[in-house]
Amino acid sequence: MNIAIIGYGYWGPNLVRNFSSLSNCSLKLVIDGRQERLKIAQNSYPTIEISTNTDDAFKRTDIDIVVIATPVFTHFEFAKKALEAGKHVLIEKPMTSSVAEAEILIELAAKKKKKLMVDHTFLYTPAVQKMKELIIKGDIGKVNYFDSTRINLGLFQPDVNVLWDLAPHDLSILNYLSDDIPYSVNATGISHLKNGIENIAYLTMNYSSDMIAHFNCSWSSPVKLRTMLVGGSKKMMVYDDTEPTEKVKLYDTGYSVNSDEDRKQIYIDYRLGDIFIPKLKNTEALSGMANDFISSILEDRDPLSSASLGINVVKILEAAQQSIKQNGKEIKL
Amino acid sequence: MNIAIIGYGYWGPNLVRNFSSLSNCSLKLVIDGRQERLKIAQNSYPTIEISTNTDDAFKRTDIDIVVIATPVFTHFEFAKKALEAGKHVLIEKPMTSSVAEAEILIELAAKKKKKLMVDHTFLYTPAVQKMKELIIKGDIGKVNYFDSTRINLGLFQPDVNVLWDLAPHDLSILNYLSDDIPYSVNATGISHLKNGIENIAYLTMNYSSDMIAHFNCSWSSPVKLRTMLVGGSKKMMVYDDTEPTEKVKLYDTGYSVNSDEDRKQIYIDYRLGDIFIPKLKNTEALSGMANDFISSILEDRDPLSSASLGINVVKILEAAQQSIKQNGKEIKL
Amino acid sequence: MNIAIIGYGYWGPNLVRNFSSLSNCSLKLVIDGRQERLKIAQNSYPTIEISTNTDDAFKRTDIDIVVIATPVFTHFEFAKKALEAGKHVLIEKPMTSSVAEAEILIELAAKKKKKLMVDHTFLYTPAVQKMKELIIKGDIGKVNYFDSTRINLGLFQPDVNVLWDLAPHDLSILNYLSDDIPYSVNATGISHLKNGIENIAYLTMNYSSDMIAHFNCSWSSPVKLRTMLVGGSKKMMVYDDTEPTEKVKLYDTGYSVNSDEDRKQIYIDYRLGDIFIPKLKNTEALSGMANDFISSILEDRDPLSSASLGINVVKILEAAQQSIKQNGKEIKL
Amino acid sequence: MNIAIIGYGYWGPNLVRNFSSLSNCSLKLVIDGRQERLKIAQNSYPTIEISTNTDDAFKRTDIDIVVIATPVFTHFEFAKKALEAGKHVLIEKPMTSSVAEAEILIELAAKKKKKLMVDHTFLYTPAVQKMKELIIKGDIGKVNYFDSTRINLGLFQPDVNVLWDLAPHDLSILNYLSDDIPYSVNATGISHLKNGIENIAYLTMNYSSDMIAHFNCSWSSPVKLRTMLVGGSKKMMVYDDTEPTEKVKLYDTGYSVNSDEDRKQIYIDYRLGDIFIPKLKNTEALSGMANDFISSILEDRDPLSSASLGINVVKILEAAQQSIKQNGKEIKL
Repeated sequence: MNIAIIGYGYWGPNLVRNFSSLSNCSLKLVIDGRQERLKIAQNSYPTIEISTNTDDAFKRTDIDIVVIATPVFTHFEFAKKALEAGKHVLIEKPMTSSVAEAEILIELAAKKKKKLMVDHTFLYTPAVQKMKELIIKGDIGKVNYFDSTRINLGLFQPDVNVLWDLAPHDLSILNYLSDDIPYSVNATGISHLKNGIENIAYLTMNYSSDMIAHFNCSWSSPVKLRTMLVGGSKKMMVYDDTEPTEKVKLYDTGYSVNSDEDRKQIYIDYRLGDIFIPKLKNTEALSGMANDFISSILEDRDPLSSASLGINVVKILEAAQQSIKQNGKEIKL
Repeated sequence: MNIAIIGYGYWGPNLVRNFSSLSNCSLKLVIDGRQERLKIAQNSYPTIEISTNTDDAFKRTDIDIVVIATPVFTHFEFAKKALEAGKHVLIEKPMTSSVAEAEILIELAAKKKKKLMVDHTFLYTPAVQKMKELIIKGDIGKVNYFDSTRINLGLFQPDVNVLWDLAPHDLSILNYLSDDIPYSVNATGISHLKNGIENIAYLTMNYSSDMIAHFNCSWSSPVKLRTMLVGGSKKMMVYDDTEPTEKVKLYDTGYSVNSDEDRKQIYIDYRLGDIFIPKLKNTEALSGMANDFISSILEDRDPLSSASLGINVVKILEAAQQSIKQNGKEIKL
Repeated sequence: MNIAIIGYGYWGPNLVRNFSSLSNCSLKLVIDGRQERLKIAQNSYPTIEISTNTDDAFKRTDIDIVVIATPVFTHFEFAKKALEAGKHVLIEKPMTSSVAEAEILIELAAKKKKKLMVDHTFLYTPAVQKMKELIIKGDIGKVNYFDSTRINLGLFQPDVNVLWDLAPHDLSILNYLSDDIPYSVNATGISHLKNGIENIAYLTMNYSSDMIAHFNCSWSSPVKLRTMLVGGSKKMMVYDDTEPTEKVKLYDTGYSVNSDEDRKQIYIDYRLGDIFIPKLKNTEALSGMANDFISSILEDRDPLSSASLGINVVKILEAAQQSIKQNGKEIKL
Repeated sequence: MNIAIIGYGYWGPNLVRNFSSLSNCSLKLVIDGRQERLKIAQNSYPTIEISTNTDDAFKRTDIDIVVIATPVFTHFEFAKKALEAGKHVLIEKPMTSSVAEAEILIELAAKKKKKLMVDHTFLYTPAVQKMKELIIKGDIGKVNYFDSTRINLGLFQPDVNVLWDLAPHDLSILNYLSDDIPYSVNATGISHLKNGIENIAYLTMNYSSDMIAHFNCSWSSPVKLRTMLVGGSKKMMVYDDTEPTEKVKLYDTGYSVNSDEDRKQIYIDYRLGDIFIPKLKNTEALSGMANDFISSILEDRDPLSSASLGINVVKILEAAQQSIKQNGKEIKL
């Protein structure tokens, strides 16, 4: 199988490095509109073909797989063309600019019997894999809350707000860790540029079950925080991605509610216990993602970071944006 | 001037210790319904009178000042009786259970020409004093955002939700640091006890100016966080109250917006600079509060932690609770 | 049993508070040469007798136990008088100014059949108790090294150097945790006051077994560090006393040596594993110490922080001082 | 000027990457005894010649500069041959296995009028450059002590002990920051492999001035620490190389000694003040080193990381090893 990658900007080189090192496929073609970017690509990978014409990815019959690493607003067009041309497609996160676009792509992929995957790389990090493992083993119990903070002094994006930029990481992780399905969102935010693109935003996801999720995203913080709290009915986890090695901490901490029916009272039992910091694997997330994508094609199965996970993320982002524009109003999903 | 303190529970002993050490007033009477609490008070302070009858505070003519450190729902009744009896009054935070109650007390205090103060102790901490000083000096510029996280594994309160319990600290600090007036709030939350009392809640305050404030409060976190980000147009501050000495950090970090009118584009200038950690004073906040209260009476002036600041905090809490119950709907203030 | 405490300076009030709360003995008398200190004592404890005459502790027949919390150079004289008068004796750390003095006291206590104990409070901290427990359970294996850093901007003592001031804590902990007996020490240091009293000092303890211990002590550090590494043949521990709750961390980390006899080569197997942070008890160390002392009298047994542990600490300190004065020369114990 | 690099192991690729990107010289030749290493080099740099024969570096007349990145025990032989052949020479740290070897090389370089430099990369880090700048500006005052901890679970070296492996970094930094010259060392250590190669070692450097330096090096720590305290007569610095951005902290903290001649007493004034964390540059240290080396040839001047600094480091290491083998005895320099 031969691969074409469209987009050699910030993330493209990482994709090229990982796909070119796989043995069960061949990276054939790198496409970018900017000649200077293609020159850099060719210097590093003299054997890979280059082009400034995206159509090469779709029209060339020796290309089986198209990887799309371009700005979000182009994802739909390129992915649609690639699928129509009968290629398997990998799209960078977030999948598309709207749920409608994502639905069309999913339908098209099904019709064409081609794989469509979204690169939510974080799912493949050793830290997230370990959290999933702890949840599956039953150590955490039922997830009761999810609280994420992803803030730093970041590049203001010209076309999408801070939620579209930063929250996909956390939304994909939550989608992966919890089976609960949110029924609505509330979001608030501010645009210090007064261009309608929020640089600080807060998102709450509401569930019919005993669960809440909250996301704090900012491009305007003097400190870089990457913290996730996962509160379970049995234990709790804290995931701090800025820690070099001790990223995941498992707290034998919790509270249980006892109600004394006779006296109509509620008692809470607190528990503060040991902390466990599991050793994490030393694998590169992007390599795991690339492997999963190629294997999902070869084995004709869904990849971990599937299109259905991708559309779930877009659904939340779209609803969140509506909520911000309507002053935090609850938007049903 | 003679003082009576009603309530010798969790906070009462701190008030007794501080007021009894002042030289310009005399702590006469401690009142609590629980005999075993009064016994503890008398062991530590053999010269102070004790009583189980709150009316003693109001009826005794030798009492000039009444300090109220009882559960929130009793604040209004006790403060009203004390003011009507012509006493100066200090109430523990939050001031009252409702804005209506707070308004009645403020009006009554004005009519009776007595001081009415709310004990928002945090205003008197060296850290908050330093932040105020940095703002007044103009180092921060215009405050653009305020982001507070106050979470830990905390005692579930039986009558008020986590916002009423924890947010008053942060709301009073914000009110003290910024002159901006919010026009609405949105809040979301969850009650894991299913008794309608939220143990996790998120609050956004909206401003007509270029400002946003957000509060993350939880009784259900395995880690204790006390972090406040204050983003200014010139510099930014981070206040971490869990740090033993380096509580306030001043970041010479920021971004400014330049718009290129010709090309209708926006450019952002980023700045990542030095960090400055000011030495803080070694004073006890509660002693500063007690001194300010007594001095405000003697000098007939408003204290720092005034009743008008106290009612502002209650306004936000009341609106936040309405918003949570209406699924995060924006509540105008 | 009635207790007299000599010395109501920095540590005395803590001793008075703890001994006065015990039910199986009675704190009768507090002695200090300074009237103003005695006044403070009497204000807090109106029922306890006070005196400026140390002889009262020794001569009064209703006194059974003498607790000595005075400067180090007075320990020997007071403890000797107390033992000769037939009292049980508790001395603050370090036990005495010299090994010779400590030996006389131990002999005297044996002759008089009285308990002689040194207050190495750290042995009773939940953190040290947990480390001992982990060692006894066999989790650590054979202790291979012990590395302690105890530095901060501290009060320069006028009579003893920084090792005599700070190292007793770490030396007592090491003596408690490891059964290995050092055979010599090397120490270096500097006196920035040029009065021969070192404010920075480094101490190495040498063992005939596969073990080394090192202590870094300073009154001249801008940061406060309280860190101890305990390397075992199976696992390693890090004890950070500045951490509010996560004081002891157990690392499933190690290395084992394999030698390939055929090729006369050595291979090292590394292991980097999980980390475990045990929940510590919430007990006060000094209360545990006071209890152990009284119980050791009642049950006629050795206390944990025995005189023989105390003299071991003095032995090291005396040898370390000799080594510093002889330019780091090895001093046999 | 054409460059040959001998050794393409752990550090070689970094040297190749940096020297190949310089514009005022040309990296011609990479030499390594291992074919598989040369293959890797050629894949990454197709235009660079490769060889397994070290003599190529010395005999080829088109080679002007030889860079030596081989095990320590080979440094002398290769550097000597290169200098004799009239090449400029850069050696990886530590310079040689003995002071005698280093002296011969320095003499030879002087005779041949060629540059001889040692790659102590740390001198070129933004953190060390900032510390030097603060010292030159006079902010620190006279350096009174230097305390370095460099410990982690590290690869046991088969031929040199942990001081030869880790301490060169800290010794070169100290040599760069302070003009004081030590007159003796004491060192202690242990070899858990019982092969005479210490995996834990402690080094004290003694000065005739009011200064002391201490180094704690270990391959056997479960935690990675890279901490340096620099105590000055005016202010103090802490350099923590594990911090991602806040590596250097300047403490306005100190103590000054006042002696009351009349009363023969000494008073200490303490000062605990603000903390300043300077923004560091974003430059790569190795690139600065490579630039300095080439410029020092072109401009015929001494580089920062000169051979005389290099031999100073070897002097300390040699003396430290003697001290360890003589049970910590003071070794004069």
